[in-house]
Amino acid sequence: MGKEISVNWQFSGSEAAKKASAATLGSYTSRIMALCDPNVKSILPPLSEAPETSFAAKKAVVEAVLNDTGNAYAPSIGLPAAKSAVAEYLSRDLPKKLTADDVFMTVGCKQAIELVIEILHTSNANILLPKPGFPWDMVHAIYNKFEVREYTFLREKNYEIDFDSVRALVDENTCAILIINPHNPNGNTYSEAHLKELAELARELGILVASDEVFRWTVFGSNPFVPMAKFSSIVPVISLGSISKGWNVPGWQTGWLALHDLDGVFQSNKIAIAVKTFLSIDDKPPTVIQAAIPTILGETHKEFFEMRQIFLKANAEFAFAKLKDIPALTCYLKTEACTFLWTELNLSLFADIKDDEEFCEKLATEECLVLLPGIAFGLKNWARHSIDMDIFALEDAFARLRSFCERHSTVIEASSVKAVNGVK
Amino acid sequence: MGKEISVNWQFSGSEAAKKASAATLGSYTSRIMALCDPNVKSILPPLSEAPETSFAAKKAVVEAVLNDTGNAYAPSIGLPAAKSAVAEYLSRDLPKKLTADDVFMTVGCKQAIELVIEILHTSNANILLPKPGFPWDMVHAIYNKFEVREYTFLREKNYEIDFDSVRALVDENTCAILIINPHNPNGNTYSEAHLKELAELARELGILVASDEVFRWTVFGSNPFVPMAKFSSIVPVISLGSISKGWNVPGWQTGWLALHDLDGVFQSNKIAIAVKTFLSIDDKPPTVIQAAIPTILGETHKEFFEMRQIFLKANAEFAFAKLKDIPALTCYLKTEACTFLWTELNLSLFADIKDDEEFCEKLATEECLVLLPGIAFGLKNWARHSIDMDIFALEDAFARLRSFCERHSTVIEASSVKAVNGVK
Repeated sequence: MGKEISVNWQFSGSEAAKKASAATLGSYTSRIMALCDPNVKSILPPLSEAPETSFAAKKAVVEAVLNDTGNAYAPSIGLPAAKSAVAEYLSRDLPKKLTADDVFMTVGCKQAIELVIEILHTSNANILLPKPGFPWDMVHAIYNKFEVREYTFLREKNYEIDFDSVRALVDENTCAILIINPHNPNGNTYSEAHLKELAELARELGILVASDEVFRWTVFGSNPFVPMAKFSSIVPVISLGSISKGWNVPGWQTGWLALHDLDGVFQSNKIAIAVKTFLSIDDKPPTVIQAAIPTILGETHKEFFEMRQIFLKANAEFAFAKLKDIPALTCYLKTEACTFLWTELNLSLFADIKDDEEFCEKLATEECLVLLPGIAFGLKNWARHSIDMDIFALEDAFARLRSFCERHSTVIEASSVKAVNGVK
Repeated sequence: MGKEISVNWQFSGSEAAKKASAATLGSYTSRIMALCDPNVKSILPPLSEAPETSFAAKKAVVEAVLNDTGNAYAPSIGLPAAKSAVAEYLSRDLPKKLTADDVFMTVGCKQAIELVIEILHTSNANILLPKPGFPWDMVHAIYNKFEVREYTFLREKNYEIDFDSVRALVDENTCAILIINPHNPNGNTYSEAHLKELAELARELGILVASDEVFRWTVFGSNPFVPMAKFSSIVPVISLGSISKGWNVPGWQTGWLALHDLDGVFQSNKIAIAVKTFLSIDDKPPTVIQAAIPTILGETHKEFFEMRQIFLKANAEFAFAKLKDIPALTCYLKTEACTFLWTELNLSLFADIKDDEEFCEKLATEECLVLLPGIAFGLKNWARHSIDMDIFALEDAFARLRSFCERHSTVIEASSVKAVNGVK
């Protein structure tokens, strides 16, 4: 077999995804989680390996499995029954109704975000992405070498979009602005007036609005959720969603992209055909979940969402109050949506921590508590805290955090140099 | 709102996927299916919208749903329990055992094929793909602008790989050969001796072997299935698979890629890290199915596969016999695996059909019977017939086919110019 002679193997692994991979939340999470002592009880986001979903969702998937209705391939644009159900569900809140033809089923909201990047990327185009923001849009922009321009927020105005920053970034090659509403990690929900203003600005600038609305079911502040497509008579809108966050089933990998067209521009400017073309070569969401979508969307009681909103609201208040005792971390907005608190680090109050990454690394090493560094969301020296855990774990998490911050403070108080549940 | 003024919208849909999309099986299938009269009973591949899977598979997924064990995100490389189960299952037939670390879970075998293309694509590299072959490898090569060289088969030797064609194509930039075993569309299974010869040739040429083994459970000829990785002590092997074909559940979108390393070359040549890097940015298979994989692989009775093999073998024999009455189509091998017959068109026997595409189009239009043209698999003037349907549908299909061929024959016999079930 010639095994003795050394072989000059002519293959090597591509590095084309390296830079994009480094920008994923997973790359930060796994690196920081690996620092936790496996012998100590860790507090990680997400805490639960078995989050509970609605009865209707379970029933729907079990029926699809037992009746074999989700075994076959679905069309690459999605199962017709799922497309219809999503169109009907989204249309409830909209003056301009969607049809099944406007909806495309995707592998979670993640693939819907990826699709927006893929379909809009042409040679000279640039796209506006939020800073900070959930990083899938950035990851796929990096992989596709799509020029990104980052707009910012007004901290003093509850993290509204800074329209001046948008205006300053746009040129004749800007094709779109992607928003996240409710916003992850900022934790706010945009008001109807703010979204209308955005629609009018985008129309003036000639750019479409893509709106990631995956957290629309986890809203518990005073601002109700308003879909961007409410203003699709002003500006063409692409809305993105999935059942992952609302139903606690990210592992079911089923989402959608909906085209809220205006005067047929998505047809004439080849957006609709581009979505179909990319979906024909891309991965597909499971048919077995798509087959369950009509029942999941149609039969889940509103109490299921209300229970979760009450739980998250209580946790947000608890966590926000605890942060008052930790001067090195400032939270400007008591989160009103999603499942996180978003805080700025005051590095001058730490004796031996130079930035958000070192903060999160030392916190994991010493306290087995995992926060994610702001840089993972595009904003250095911030941190994102999960509040999606039971109150005892949350209390433990903030005790560890306080202990850690006191231990590393420039103002050392002897009494506070102690571990709570951590290893050091 | 300024709606009266026409807006110069600055976006347009990307055409980057257009050429790749045109090469998908779906693009051929949907174009040909659209020609069928909706008022006539059509015979399409695949016929069934609700293929039945094994009891163990249903039980496993229902348990995952009821116990919430598949709701959360899985790691991007796959759920540990699923990786372990696949490693153990594949190792049953192998001298060199796999560990969970060698296995990566994918969105069906389709994403595993896509991954092979992505990880091996470097600027000067070329890859050997089969002609004919199942086209996902070609689709992703086109999209990624990866140079493809197509090797061929020896019709007179039961579609063994033509090693002379392989040798003639390889140069110092060839990185790999992708094989399909059992082969779709040829319908054969490679012998142990043939695979060993391939391993030795690939070693001599310094290229790895990637083996798509998604049809390994649907083998019913005299050649038993032998995994390529049996020879991973000669050549490094990447094996690809999924539960889609064996368990009748393509819609469950769950497959795998396994690295059968040789002397650590997959580590030193950065193949393993490239797989992880791409998976970190790519779509993920549903956790709810991954959670069920240990039970699906471990508890499905062999009778489930045997029943299906008996069914397909009977259909293959029936269809092969029927083809004897249709001189314009020649089937060189009574299929011994997969779910198709693969036939060459003798165009000289048709009065008014210029190629395989026109053949399939007219057949769909006139008889509501869908075959796929050889060009969809890279080989002009052939056709692929599905045999995965009940015997009555199969009889009907071949009656329609015979009627069509006689009607378009250069030798018109008055008695045969009639429709069977078709519209004309």
